[in-house]
Amino acid sequence: MYRTHTCGALRLEDKGKKVVLAGWVQTIRKYGAITFVDLRDRYGITQLLFGEQVNAALEANPLGREFVLQVSGEVIERSNKNPQLATGDIEIDVQSLTLLNKAAVPPFTIQDDTDGGDDLRMKYRFLDLRRAAVRRNLELRYAVNRAARTYLHSEQFMDIETPFLIKSTPEGARDFVVPSRMNPGQFYALPQSPQTFKQLLMVSGYDRYYQIVKCFRDEDLRADRQPEFTQIDCEMAFVEQEDILLMFEGMIRYIFKEVKQIDYTAPIARLSWEEAMWTYGNDKPDIRFAMPLLNLKKPDTVFTNKADHRTLIDEAGFAIFDQAETVLALAVPGAADYSRKQTDELTEWVQRPQIGMKGLAYIKYLAADNCKSSIDKFYTPEQLLSIAKAAHAQPGDLILLLAGKEERTRKAMSELRLELGQRLGLRKPDEFKLCWVLDFPLFEYDEEGNRWVARHHPFTSPKPDQIETMIGNDPVIADAANYLRHPYARIKANAYDMVLNGNEIGGGSIRIYQRELQEKMFAALGMDKEEQQHKFGFLLGAFEYGAPPHGGIAFGFDRLCAILGGSESIRDFIAFPKNNAGRDVMLDAPATIDEKQFEELQIRLQLKK
Amino acid sequence: MYRTHTCGALRLEDKGKKVVLAGWVQTIRKYGAITFVDLRDRYGITQLLFGEQVNAALEANPLGREFVLQVSGEVIERSNKNPQLATGDIEIDVQSLTLLNKAAVPPFTIQDDTDGGDDLRMKYRFLDLRRAAVRRNLELRYAVNRAARTYLHSEQFMDIETPFLIKSTPEGARDFVVPSRMNPGQFYALPQSPQTFKQLLMVSGYDRYYQIVKCFRDEDLRADRQPEFTQIDCEMAFVEQEDILLMFEGMIRYIFKEVKQIDYTAPIARLSWEEAMWTYGNDKPDIRFAMPLLNLKKPDTVFTNKADHRTLIDEAGFAIFDQAETVLALAVPGAADYSRKQTDELTEWVQRPQIGMKGLAYIKYLAADNCKSSIDKFYTPEQLLSIAKAAHAQPGDLILLLAGKEERTRKAMSELRLELGQRLGLRKPDEFKLCWVLDFPLFEYDEEGNRWVARHHPFTSPKPDQIETMIGNDPVIADAANYLRHPYARIKANAYDMVLNGNEIGGGSIRIYQRELQEKMFAALGMDKEEQQHKFGFLLGAFEYGAPPHGGIAFGFDRLCAILGGSESIRDFIAFPKNNAGRDVMLDAPATIDEKQFEELQIRLQLKK
Repeated sequence: MYRTHTCGALRLEDKGKKVVLAGWVQTIRKYGAITFVDLRDRYGITQLLFGEQVNAALEANPLGREFVLQVSGEVIERSNKNPQLATGDIEIDVQSLTLLNKAAVPPFTIQDDTDGGDDLRMKYRFLDLRRAAVRRNLELRYAVNRAARTYLHSEQFMDIETPFLIKSTPEGARDFVVPSRMNPGQFYALPQSPQTFKQLLMVSGYDRYYQIVKCFRDEDLRADRQPEFTQIDCEMAFVEQEDILLMFEGMIRYIFKEVKQIDYTAPIARLSWEEAMWTYGNDKPDIRFAMPLLNLKKPDTVFTNKADHRTLIDEAGFAIFDQAETVLALAVPGAADYSRKQTDELTEWVQRPQIGMKGLAYIKYLAADNCKSSIDKFYTPEQLLSIAKAAHAQPGDLILLLAGKEERTRKAMSELRLELGQRLGLRKPDEFKLCWVLDFPLFEYDEEGNRWVARHHPFTSPKPDQIETMIGNDPVIADAANYLRHPYARIKANAYDMVLNGNEIGGGSIRIYQRELQEKMFAALGMDKEEQQHKFGFLLGAFEYGAPPHGGIAFGFDRLCAILGGSESIRDFIAFPKNNAGRDVMLDAPATIDEKQFEELQIRLQLKK
Repeated sequence: MYRTHTCGALRLEDKGKKVVLAGWVQTIRKYGAITFVDLRDRYGITQLLFGEQVNAALEANPLGREFVLQVSGEVIERSNKNPQLATGDIEIDVQSLTLLNKAAVPPFTIQDDTDGGDDLRMKYRFLDLRRAAVRRNLELRYAVNRAARTYLHSEQFMDIETPFLIKSTPEGARDFVVPSRMNPGQFYALPQSPQTFKQLLMVSGYDRYYQIVKCFRDEDLRADRQPEFTQIDCEMAFVEQEDILLMFEGMIRYIFKEVKQIDYTAPIARLSWEEAMWTYGNDKPDIRFAMPLLNLKKPDTVFTNKADHRTLIDEAGFAIFDQAETVLALAVPGAADYSRKQTDELTEWVQRPQIGMKGLAYIKYLAADNCKSSIDKFYTPEQLLSIAKAAHAQPGDLILLLAGKEERTRKAMSELRLELGQRLGLRKPDEFKLCWVLDFPLFEYDEEGNRWVARHHPFTSPKPDQIETMIGNDPVIADAANYLRHPYARIKANAYDMVLNGNEIGGGSIRIYQRELQEKMFAALGMDKEEQQHKFGFLLGAFEYGAPPHGGIAFGFDRLCAILGGSESIRDFIAFPKNNAGRDVMLDAPATIDEKQFEELQIRLQLKK
C-alpha cells in the first residue's frame, strides 16, 4: 500500500503519528524556505509542510499542480487552523517525498468553477471527473443506487439480469442492432428496456424483480438525451395499480431520506391525466407552484369530466377568441405592474418558433375593481374582472391569455407557466414535489397511418372495466375525421407516471396477461398474426401456461439523480456521457472499423450520396 | 393486492385467520367429495382444502397443473401434518375461488427432475425458470451479487457505470459492433470489459471502483461460453499486488460466509505460475486433492527454478523416454490393482483426439519392494521403485507416465490427473479450495507473426524490477528459433488469478501507469505510433496528467455462481442464456432485420457464397 491514511482521515488526535499519504497536488504555496502543499484524494485534502531540509529537494525538482506524490512524515498541529477542512487542525511535517507521476498542465482548471468549456471538458473527461462538483454528482448517483437496492431488497425484490443481445422488434423508437458473425445475415438488437423479460419472470413466478440496467434507444438526439441510459426497472406479480403506487412511493421516500436526508412525509398527490392536462396543460406538471390554467373553452373530445367557462368570453365579437379551438388564461402573481416593455417581451417569447403562438393578450388586475387589458376594446371592465377572478387572480396579478388550436395552445400555456414560475423564483431546485399522473389514454392517434399507436407500450392493459370495450370493438378507424369518436379513443390505460418537479421520473402500468387481449392489442396497432408470432410469439406462448396478473414501473435513473442533485442536465450525472450527436469525444467513438471486421460480419457500407 | 399472504407465510399460530392466497397449482389430489391442491409461489407451497361445497364448483370447471388461482378461506390445523414443509402444520379451508388464468399442459414437468431435454427447456425457458432447482440457482446468484456489493461498499468502493457503446479496439477477442445511424459509416463496439474506463477512473481519483457489469466477446463459442457474460469488475489506486490479494481474499471469504455459511478461514495458497505448471501441469490447479506431477525432464526454457529427475530414467535405452522433450509421472492412490482392462482403458483415454497422446506407461507399486510395469523391459525393479518413490507413491498406488512434446504432454497429464481425481471422488462439489496463481509470463509468443502478444492484456505491468528489461530491450525477435532466449520471454507480469476448485474465477493485474512504458508495451505488440494514438490516445493522454499507481481484478460472475452452486455449467445460473451457437432459442434471436433498418443504417449484407 502506498499510504497509511487517506487525505481525509487525519485529525488532531493523530498528532505525533508517523504517516504515509499519497495523492494529487491541489495547490502549492511558498513562504521563503518552506512550502505548503495541499494534497488531494477522493476523501479530502491534507496540508503538507515541506520544511527547509526537504524544501531544498523541491527546489531541484519543482512540483506542479496535479503531480502525484507519496510523502511520509509526522502529523503535527497547525498553528493556523482551517475550520473549513475536516483535516484542518493538522498538517504533515514531511520527512521524505516520492514523486509517483508528473502531470502536464491541465487544459482547464480542476475547480468547481472551471474555465473549461463543454467540448474541452468532454474530451478530457478524465480530468473533468476530478472536479469536486462532478465527483459529488457521481457519489449522489451511487447513493441513489444503494438506497434503491436496499429498499427493494427489503421488499423481497430480486435482482435478475436480463440479456443485452436480444431480438429487434422496433415499436416506436429505433433499435440499435448488432450483426451476428456466427449467424450471418442475422442481427441482435440491444434492449430498449427489459420489458418482455421482466414479464416472463412474472410468468415464471419470480414475483418481484428489479434491475438497475442500461437501455438503448437509437433516437434522433435532443439536448439531454443519451443513446444509452439507465433504468431502475421493477415488476411485481399479483398486484393492482394501488399496490404499485404504494410500493414505489415507499421507494422514493426511502431514497429522499437516505440520499437527501429529507423526510418526505407529505401525501403524494394523484392527478388523473385529464386533471393534469386541464389544470397545468401538461402531463408532467410541476406542482411546486400553483398558477393553474383557466380553460375558457372545453375541447369535449379530450376532456370528459370538465366544465369550461365559455360564457366569460362568448359573444363579445372578438373574432380571435370566438374562432379559436382553445382559449386559456393564466394568472401571474404580482405582475400587474409589468411595463409595456415587459408585456411586449412576453409576447415575443410566445411568438418564438419553439412556442409558435401568434400573440398574447393580457389583463392587468390592478385593484379590487380595476382592470386594464390589451383586449378592452371587446370586453367590459366587468367581463375582464370576471375572467380575472375565474383565473384565481388577486389584485396585483397579471392575467395572460392565449388562443388557438387545442394542442399547441395548451403546450404554449404550459411552457409560459413554467417560464414565469422560473422567473418568479417559484421553481426552487432544493424543493421537491412529487405527484402521480394516472388514467392516461391507452391509445394515441397516428394521423399519417390513420391508426392507433400505443401511448405507453403494447403491453399496457386497459382499465379493467374497459377490457370489454377493447375486445368488443373493431380497432379500424372508418371515419378518420372523427377518430376521437371511435370507442378506442376513450379507453384509459391502467398506467401511471411518477412526476418530480415537472419531470417524469418513472412510469409503468399494469400489464396485459391474457393472450386474447394481448392479440387484440397487437391487432389494434396494425400487427397481423404472422408479425405477432414473429416478434412476440414467446410472450403470447408464455401467456398460455399460467400467467399471473402483474405490473411494474421503470424509473429514469439518470434523470432522477440529476433532479435530486438540483440539476436539469443528466450529462453531469453520467461518468462518461455522449454528446448531442451521440459521440464519445474522449474515445472518438463511433469510428470506422477494419476491413477484416466487415468481412467477418459479412456486411458492407452503402452510404447515401 | 391479490393476496394477504404468500404461499410460504402461514404457520400454526395463524390458525383461524381469514386469508387470501394466490399462486400456481402444483398438484391436485381428489379424495371422494373433497380435493387437496398444493398452491405454489416463489416463497413456498400451501395446501388448499376444497370441501364439499366448493368442490362442486371445481367439478364444473376442473383445475389443471399450473393454473393460476386466487382463493380465500380460513387457516385450519392439518390433521396430517407435513414436517417437510414450512407451512406443513396448516391448510386453507377454501371458501371461494377465482381462476386468474388457465394453463395449457406444460411441454415438460415443472420438477427438479424434469423430463424436458435441453432444447425444449431453452425454448420454454419461462417454464424452466419455474423449477425449484433453477430458482435456487438464481437466488444464489442474487445472494452473491448482494454479498459482493455489501463487502465492496464497506471497503469504500463506488459503483460507477461505464458506457456500453464504445470504440472498437480489437485485441485478441473480436468485438461485437453496432452501426451508428447518426454517424453513417461508423460503428460503436460493445465492451469486452470496462478495462480502460476503470483505469481512467483511477486517473480521475475515484480511488476504489466496482461494477457488476455485462461484457461481450464475439468468440467462436465453446461449450459453456456465452457471448454476453457478467463480471464483478474492480479497480484500486495506490496499491501493490499484495493489497489487491488481501482485499479480494476478504471479498471471497465474505461471499462464502454470506452465501454458503462457510467460514473459509484457512489461508489461501499462493503458487507461482511456474509452481502451478510444474506441480499440476496447469495454471488453474484443482488443489482439492494432491496427486502432484513428477517432472522427469525439465524444459529449461520454461522453468527457471526447478530441478528435474532426469537421472531416474536416463541411459536405460528406452528410446521413447530418451527422445521425449518431457516425461511426466503421476501416482494414482490405491490403483495398483487395476486390471489390464482398466489400464488399457486409460491408455485409450489418453489416445483420444482431445488428449492426443501416443501411449501410456505404468508402474504398479504393489508392495514395499515390488513393482510391475509396462516398461520393465527397460528398467530394473530398483529403477521402477525409485521412480515410484520420486512420484510420492505409496505401496498400492499406480504410477502413470506420459512422454512427448512439452506443452501437449503437460496438458495431457493435467487432464489425466483431473479425470482420475474425479473417478476417485477427490473432487467433491461441496468442498471449496481457493488459491492464487502469481507471476505469469507477461508475453506469449505468436509463432505465426513471430511476435509477442500480451498474455493477460496490454495494460498489465511487468514486475517492477523488470521494467528496465522491458524498456531497455528491442521487442523484435531476430532469432525466431530461439525466441525463448529473447529477454522478453523471461519478463513476469504483475498479475494474479484466483482459482477455485480448478476454475479461474478472477484475474487481474497491477497496471502500467507511465506513458513511456505503455507505449513500449503497445510497440512490443506490434502497434505503431499512429495505431496507438487511434486506439488508445485517450489513455496515453490520461497518463500525462497525473496517473496514480493502480491495479484491479475482475471476477467471472457467472462461473463463480456456478461453482458455488456446485455446478460446472454457467448456463444454469443465467436467467436467459444463449445456446452454443449464440442463439436465444426462446426469442429466436438473432434474426433478420427490416429493409428500412438497413437503409437507415446505410449498410448491406454481403453474404459469402
